[in-house]
Amino acid sequence: MAGNSFGEIFRVTTFGESHGKGIGVVIDGCPARLQLDMSFIQSELRRRRPGQSALTTQRQETEEFEILSGVLGEQTTGAPLTIWIANRDARPADYTHVATTYRPSHADYTYEAKYGIRDVRGSGRASARETAARVAAGAVAKVMLRSMGIEIGGYVRQVGTVAMTGADRQWPLAEVEASLVRCPDPATSASMQAEIERVRDLGDSLGGVIACVITGVPAGLGEPVFDRLHADLGKGILSINACKGFEIGSGFAGAAMQGSAHNDPFVQTDEGVRTTTNHSGGVQGGISNGMEIIVRAAFKPVSTLMQTQRTIDQSGQEVELEGKGRHDPCVVPRAVPIVEAMCALVLADHLLRHRARADFISR
Amino acid sequence: MAGNSFGEIFRVTTFGESHGKGIGVVIDGCPARLQLDMSFIQSELRRRRPGQSALTTQRQETEEFEILSGVLGEQTTGAPLTIWIANRDARPADYTHVATTYRPSHADYTYEAKYGIRDVRGSGRASARETAARVAAGAVAKVMLRSMGIEIGGYVRQVGTVAMTGADRQWPLAEVEASLVRCPDPATSASMQAEIERVRDLGDSLGGVIACVITGVPAGLGEPVFDRLHADLGKGILSINACKGFEIGSGFAGAAMQGSAHNDPFVQTDEGVRTTTNHSGGVQGGISNGMEIIVRAAFKPVSTLMQTQRTIDQSGQEVELEGKGRHDPCVVPRAVPIVEAMCALVLADHLLRHRARADFISR
Amino acid sequence: MAGNSFGEIFRVTTFGESHGKGIGVVIDGCPARLQLDMSFIQSELRRRRPGQSALTTQRQETEEFEILSGVLGEQTTGAPLTIWIANRDARPADYTHVATTYRPSHADYTYEAKYGIRDVRGSGRASARETAARVAAGAVAKVMLRSMGIEIGGYVRQVGTVAMTGADRQWPLAEVEASLVRCPDPATSASMQAEIERVRDLGDSLGGVIACVITGVPAGLGEPVFDRLHADLGKGILSINACKGFEIGSGFAGAAMQGSAHNDPFVQTDEGVRTTTNHSGGVQGGISNGMEIIVRAAFKPVSTLMQTQRTIDQSGQEVELEGKGRHDPCVVPRAVPIVEAMCALVLADHLLRHRARADFISR
Amino acid sequence: MAGNSFGEIFRVTTFGESHGKGIGVVIDGCPARLQLDMSFIQSELRRRRPGQSALTTQRQETEEFEILSGVLGEQTTGAPLTIWIANRDARPADYTHVATTYRPSHADYTYEAKYGIRDVRGSGRASARETAARVAAGAVAKVMLRSMGIEIGGYVRQVGTVAMTGADRQWPLAEVEASLVRCPDPATSASMQAEIERVRDLGDSLGGVIACVITGVPAGLGEPVFDRLHADLGKGILSINACKGFEIGSGFAGAAMQGSAHNDPFVQTDEGVRTTTNHSGGVQGGISNGMEIIVRAAFKPVSTLMQTQRTIDQSGQEVELEGKGRHDPCVVPRAVPIVEAMCALVLADHLLRHRARADFISR
Repeated sequence: MAGNSFGEIFRVTTFGESHGKGIGVVIDGCPARLQLDMSFIQSELRRRRPGQSALTTQRQETEEFEILSGVLGEQTTGAPLTIWIANRDARPADYTHVATTYRPSHADYTYEAKYGIRDVRGSGRASARETAARVAAGAVAKVMLRSMGIEIGGYVRQVGTVAMTGADRQWPLAEVEASLVRCPDPATSASMQAEIERVRDLGDSLGGVIACVITGVPAGLGEPVFDRLHADLGKGILSINACKGFEIGSGFAGAAMQGSAHNDPFVQTDEGVRTTTNHSGGVQGGISNGMEIIVRAAFKPVSTLMQTQRTIDQSGQEVELEGKGRHDPCVVPRAVPIVEAMCALVLADHLLRHRARADFISR
Repeated sequence: MAGNSFGEIFRVTTFGESHGKGIGVVIDGCPARLQLDMSFIQSELRRRRPGQSALTTQRQETEEFEILSGVLGEQTTGAPLTIWIANRDARPADYTHVATTYRPSHADYTYEAKYGIRDVRGSGRASARETAARVAAGAVAKVMLRSMGIEIGGYVRQVGTVAMTGADRQWPLAEVEASLVRCPDPATSASMQAEIERVRDLGDSLGGVIACVITGVPAGLGEPVFDRLHADLGKGILSINACKGFEIGSGFAGAAMQGSAHNDPFVQTDEGVRTTTNHSGGVQGGISNGMEIIVRAAFKPVSTLMQTQRTIDQSGQEVELEGKGRHDPCVVPRAVPIVEAMCALVLADHLLRHRARADFISR
Repeated sequence: MAGNSFGEIFRVTTFGESHGKGIGVVIDGCPARLQLDMSFIQSELRRRRPGQSALTTQRQETEEFEILSGVLGEQTTGAPLTIWIANRDARPADYTHVATTYRPSHADYTYEAKYGIRDVRGSGRASARETAARVAAGAVAKVMLRSMGIEIGGYVRQVGTVAMTGADRQWPLAEVEASLVRCPDPATSASMQAEIERVRDLGDSLGGVIACVITGVPAGLGEPVFDRLHADLGKGILSINACKGFEIGSGFAGAAMQGSAHNDPFVQTDEGVRTTTNHSGGVQGGISNGMEIIVRAAFKPVSTLMQTQRTIDQSGQEVELEGKGRHDPCVVPRAVPIVEAMCALVLADHLLRHRARADFISR
Repeated sequence: MAGNSFGEIFRVTTFGESHGKGIGVVIDGCPARLQLDMSFIQSELRRRRPGQSALTTQRQETEEFEILSGVLGEQTTGAPLTIWIANRDARPADYTHVATTYRPSHADYTYEAKYGIRDVRGSGRASARETAARVAAGAVAKVMLRSMGIEIGGYVRQVGTVAMTGADRQWPLAEVEASLVRCPDPATSASMQAEIERVRDLGDSLGGVIACVITGVPAGLGEPVFDRLHADLGKGILSINACKGFEIGSGFAGAAMQGSAHNDPFVQTDEGVRTTTNHSGGVQGGISNGMEIIVRAAFKPVSTLMQTQRTIDQSGQEVELEGKGRHDPCVVPRAVPIVEAMCALVLADHLLRHRARADFISR
């Protein structure tokens, strides 16, 4: 209700602040006897961590995590599974200069309007540091989904005006991770990197687009009419910091097509019912149809600039805001594991939701 | 959990099938002593109804509604408010020919995969007829929001490849309703109408884009971190039939901008804190900032064509599917009140959610 | 959130008022392809209906029901299942004399305090007529539970000071229904009937105690720590009108026992693990243990008396309240199917909740 | 859904195991800018802690707590408030002897039946140690309620067969805490203490009854029809370990009364509408009526005995279970702050739930 939980059965609740003691997550509803892979959880957290390259913020966090509850040995017990990631390089004092100022396009003003108080230490909950908890929980969900053959792979399609071409597909993780910007096409990756460096040197920032492709999803997941699978994917992804748009399958481009071109014809194959095209993006009527699920998310450019900006303070006075601190000129590469995590959380939840009622009366 | 409810406090549950007895909605959580406007509810239902023009399906529904509970006189009592819209022109027998066939890009296959049974009568719950209930509930939400000065106005921005230009804004309802396609720009409206007629005569269909602008929203609505206001708007709108994409503010275009151009500078005005641009679309950090909320939704072309299509049946055999029945060549104009209704439901809910805790300790 | 829904997966929402158009319920989350038994639903409603004997209110309701949605033939589709029971013998005008008066121990004053408006027509939602919807939904849940071998049987243990002795057990339905007061012990039943008649003739009313025994529940249902099976049974039953107490197994009597006498020893039997006594009432640590579930509920005497009472009106003035209208001198016999219905709803929900995660990793 | 959360708006999620790293709670939905009283939270935890007297388990826990998130200075920020209580005297090895044995009336068998795995370290989540988290969260709720004038006071009414007489009322905290068994009547307290010592020396255990009285609750809290205030109080209290019964107001005794004696007459007083008796226990129609709320809870005797018991092991073999370890012969005195905490959580939640919609249209 207060917005820090996500999911109905595989339900995560995140807590903690960017420059407080740390970031945590409780997963309530993870099935029992799941064999966790601690090094995988760690590697997922490292994909998101700050300080991973010259293109990202220089805040240094090793993202070492601790499991506080819910696990015996490396096996889940069915009890709430809590993961805690202590902040190692928090610098709350770095934010003294913005304590009474509303940074443009940040959440300073809106948090103050809502709560009458604002955690000025790196924006508290409004910081993308909160997403470390999502990535940790998403790693647990990925372990669970993998046991069912479901794989999730995201990558950067666009940075600023530099974009990959071609249809979205699931790229091998190694090819994505080989790129500093997580774009699996080497030429585009190089252009994106150059563009980020150019803009960083201007003290400016860039947005971009992430695509995420999910394979191995059985037909039948998603709950009509409001909790359609893509509506929950959309909500989950739109809840990531800086995300301003979401589409599935043909998305906005599909609005310009005619039905005869857009419809996906069904065929019977050795692997079951399939469609010859996939403009639906793997979801029809809100329910997965067994094809690849293909989603895309638009991220605005980061609000923090290394430039002086004019704004106002709490008293309504105009002030000049100096550009300083440790920030990413473009968060899109680091957002890839976050998008994947939100997809994993949605699918894990819908898998269990479906399981509750599926084939109660045997077919 | 089974997906037919939406909202946390202002919570709606829809029920009923396209070619069953009717469509209904229970609103649980409407404040007491709200003065309903029955003719307004009726007019909203008529904006969505089939048979309203030569461009829409010829199914004839007057959409007369009955209030089953929750109202004394025309005042809400705080009890669950139930609205029932009987189906007057249902023709379940029209669907006999598709009882065992999976229509391309319909929900036939996925419902069968999920439930092991399919309501073949006009697709049952998968039909957009379900959205009549949303429009009825949305009308109640609009009455509630109006009492707070909040107004919601949608319109068609694009049909197929024909699109309006210019920034999104709230148009007077009369200018939107004056257009058969609900596009407030007369020239574009005429082109859209011609395009729909052209495609209809081919037995084909079209998609499009709807914009919706919400004014009068106070700063402070939305619950970080998962239930951000735009994430819930996104989920609500993506749960509408045929919707494949959602964006707020700068959306996908914003991904190509630089931060220095995208940031919305704050200024102090007589009406309070405002921003000089609104790339944020009225939401920052997931919380409304007092500016206009601007969202857009992409709709794919209708799946039902008046053309013969190849597909398969339940046994996996290839079959030819004849194009027949009563359908819209382009549902986008009729989806405008549905998009508005989902926005109204999200805002009514977040208004009450915020109210629960806001200023518990007085400022 | 506004309190008219119950259950997480098998989720019911009731609506309608005592002297309005009727009473309804939406069940969202019923598994698909369940074969309903319409005559059973009808017979359950008739067990609760007014006018069934000389001991009950003379309001005449046939309790004919109509299924508005969610069923094809007599099979559930997985869509929301809505049942509507029109009021046939409503007399809203009967309540004019209490429109401005607070009847003692009724909900008149509290509804007005909460909502600022009160549905004076037979108390609206506060009337036990709302429970007709619960019985209808409970009948669907019973059909579902029976397919798993789970049976629920309630009966009246005590009326006023007249009580059965002996341990609680599941009595054959016919023996319970053979008694006008639903007490399966003929001698006690006769005394109870005499006591109700005596008190009715005084214009007074009586309370009592219902026991309910559930057989066939597999071990493993219930979700620690807050949603323990007996905590949800308790909540469901305490939400029935006039219920003031709930206990499971040894209950309040168990508080006076020593642990060595109270502990239930485990033994291995051909039917699996059992206990030789059942002071636990079938639930240990909040989870069913495979033994009979035994609960009891205390009901206060009906508030409406056929006597003159002193009270106050809305303006705080003392007034005399005349005893008139159609009411039960003792509702306990009619509450038996309601208690059973709430047990059925809780078990159906917990069965599906357990199913969502049970043996995700095979044992 | 998985049962470790409680409340709709003021929502707590507990995590941690009895002999794991510690016990924690996330409160999501606490209003912002509440001034916490850390020494009060500490004192509440100490009221529940083990090792507080010769009558309780000798496990030594100082119950020092740490706030992990949600607080700036001593003020809540509106973000999730997390409290962590590290285990200081855990001895997981103490449970090796019961790793494969089902202790009578413990949750060993049911957890294994449900999850296929059991946290043998002191029963993990099934241990009453989990309730430390509830007491911590309840202390925050009490701070919030106190700012509204609501006070909660519990005490022990009965231990085994030794019981206080007289109507329930709110006793001064000092008088309750002056008694080792938390019974404010000195003579009864002495008898209870003697009874516990007698039974402890036999290696046996005792149950009892706790009464809890809540003052200052405004009329209007509670959500009909399922979330009646006393139904939620009942659920919350029944979810406490070893609780087998709950009643409000007249409870089970009320079942034997006649309506003319049970009805609570309304009168107008200088402090508003009151009733001259309070058999309703402060709740009518599921909504608070402004009178004292009076509830009672029955606790069974502790399952762990210092006696040898016969039971079975996982393979179904009969075994002898030795009595050893650190345990309370009677947990009822330590359960008083837990009962109070659950009442505080229910009231805090219902206060915020009511606030969401109350007087949306001004009266």
